Amino acid sequence: MKFSISKEAFLEALQQVQHVVSTRATLPILSNVLIEAVGGKLKLTTTDLDVGVSGSVDANIEKEGSTTLPVKRLVSIVAQLPASEVEVTVDAKNHASIKCGPSFFKIIGLGEEEFPPLPKFEEATEFKIAQSVLLDAIKKTSYAISTDETRYVLNGIYVSFSEGKMTFVATDGRRLAMVENDLEFPASHEMDIIIPAKAIGELQRMLGTEGDALVLLSGNQISFDIGGSVIVSKLIEGNYPNYKQVIPGQRKERVTINREEFLHTVRRVSLLTSESSNSVKLTFSTGNIDVQANSKDIGEAKEPIVADYDGEEFAIAFNPEFLMAPLKNLSDESVYLDLIDGMSPGVIRLDSSFLYVIMPMRVTS
Amino acid sequence: MKFSISKEAFLEALQQVQHVVSTRATLPILSNVLIEAVGGKLKLTTTDLDVGVSGSVDANIEKEGSTTLPVKRLVSIVAQLPASEVEVTVDAKNHASIKCGPSFFKIIGLGEEEFPPLPKFEEATEFKIAQSVLLDAIKKTSYAISTDETRYVLNGIYVSFSEGKMTFVATDGRRLAMVENDLEFPASHEMDIIIPAKAIGELQRMLGTEGDALVLLSGNQISFDIGGSVIVSKLIEGNYPNYKQVIPGQRKERVTINREEFLHTVRRVSLLTSESSNSVKLTFSTGNIDVQANSKDIGEAKEPIVADYDGEEFAIAFNPEFLMAPLKNLSDESVYLDLIDGMSPGVIRLDSSFLYVIMPMRVTS
Repeated sequence: MKFSISKEAFLEALQQVQHVVSTRATLPILSNVLIEAVGGKLKLTTTDLDVGVSGSVDANIEKEGSTTLPVKRLVSIVAQLPASEVEVTVDAKNHASIKCGPSFFKIIGLGEEEFPPLPKFEEATEFKIAQSVLLDAIKKTSYAISTDETRYVLNGIYVSFSEGKMTFVATDGRRLAMVENDLEFPASHEMDIIIPAKAIGELQRMLGTEGDALVLLSGNQISFDIGGSVIVSKLIEGNYPNYKQVIPGQRKERVTINREEFLHTVRRVSLLTSESSNSVKLTFSTGNIDVQANSKDIGEAKEPIVADYDGEEFAIAFNPEFLMAPLKNLSDESVYLDLIDGMSPGVIRLDSSFLYVIMPMRVTS
Repeated sequence: MKFSISKEAFLEALQQVQHVVSTRATLPILSNVLIEAVGGKLKLTTTDLDVGVSGSVDANIEKEGSTTLPVKRLVSIVAQLPASEVEVTVDAKNHASIKCGPSFFKIIGLGEEEFPPLPKFEEATEFKIAQSVLLDAIKKTSYAISTDETRYVLNGIYVSFSEGKMTFVATDGRRLAMVENDLEFPASHEMDIIIPAKAIGELQRMLGTEGDALVLLSGNQISFDIGGSVIVSKLIEGNYPNYKQVIPGQRKERVTINREEFLHTVRRVSLLTSESSNSVKLTFSTGNIDVQANSKDIGEAKEPIVADYDGEEFAIAFNPEFLMAPLKNLSDESVYLDLIDGMSPGVIRLDSSFLYVIMPMRVTS
């Protein structure tokens, strides 16, 4: 196998697939990238057995062939090469020689026959989704994914295809983010799946704002074809909790708040929270919300926000990180905060079909 | 105590003194900054009992007084304040109220009488040194300070004032950096001291390129007055090793090498070193140095550098980090590499009075 390629193109293609590879891979082959030089292209593939990524890049192929090389080391070498033209030759023992300007490197790879193949998707269920819609839905929900490994069904985004809608839900039991989009698909395609967080992270990296992503589902595997690059992942098996029952059915009060102002105020006030007193209190009065925090032996913080509130005075407390998370990840100018009373979950909403439920904390008086 | 000040000026003054404060201070008072509002200025002081820093900033003092406040928390609050005018009021219980735009903070401090005073320098020996000279000498030597706490005399820079010269030396036993500068002082001021690494770090942060630093020495304490800001530090007590004996007296070969090219080549080749094979080999032949690394089961790297060498062919190996350290910290276009043979220490020199001795490693064939 022999090819030449520009340093920049090779580096970009390698960087796109390297994130899946763990620095503590369980098998040596899983530290490697599969490189297949065929038909004027290099196809690059990595996998950790749960999630796999592949992409391709144009190259000047002098001799077709395949090998696998340690991807982190290869990236660090290519990133530092002194010139723009890189020539790679791989012998039958998978020893790769890399020449670039005066530099010469030889690195030792493993045979491509050891590389675990990515799963095939035959007789798969197919969805076509605009990349921008997929990226937006991930951005609006993924921050609420649970990282608690003992609750593995929550370690991903629940996606439901039902009645002409695609619904994304993420929750860790203390807050829940949901976004719904219309999508055309046959009724026979109705299904619920859970996509693991690691695949969501790869998707977020690879998705753009133009064109479609082709989604294939077969058995417990999902694949996303994004402009020729592919992400393949196992799905999380198990029953997602009935999230609908935590969404409050009615609301008593709705205030409209400037998103950035709200975020900055909560961030400032949260500087006076502490491990033992990790809540900010929102006190509603006519035209105003007072945001407060109080930590014994440390101090207190207070800042008002103008809001179109005209109900009775009451207070509710939230974990500041959970309150700030959607405010950071949305881009709308203002949000609705829907409340019932100081003991019931609050809901942040937009005019579009997004909602974020957040459990209150006990109000310290 | 009551004062008002611009957010930016307050933040800058606090940030200048906050680095000395450890996040795990042994006494609560050591987490605090001493704030003294007097005569149109705020004087800010921090200490960890070994190193102390103080600076001052203009403020509009409405009521003079002193207090101490937790510096990290104060910095995080001031950094996030929403407007530019900050008003601070401190009551008799050391509760500080901070007002800025709509924001209100109250933080709890400790009495200034608990704050350990910085040492006084009476009947001190005094040196006046250009800030640029001090900064340059620190930059050229400090990377070689040992971090091995069992060899505490090496955990700082050895400074000798002798025969009209100020000499800086740092070593960790495997490499040694030295720089010498002419300095005027009376013969009665001749002395040797060891300045600990933490004080060196503070100095490097605070020194500029214009004006003088006034250095005072008294007992086992040193202070640096840098344009009104002061760093005070204990000196390291003990005998610094006789560093002169490790500097090779003669040289057999001298090559002139472009510093940046040499650095980049060694950095690239060092990508193929490993924990068990952590050396780069330099093979000298007419007009050329081959830089090589070789790690079993991983691979090898090789790159030539043009050099004005015309002696016999020989090879020498170095730890790549130790070889790169001075190349990164110097700014000259080229350096001299002085060698005797493959088993003797190498020396990097400049036209000025700088030298860096580096022990060779065993050459693997």
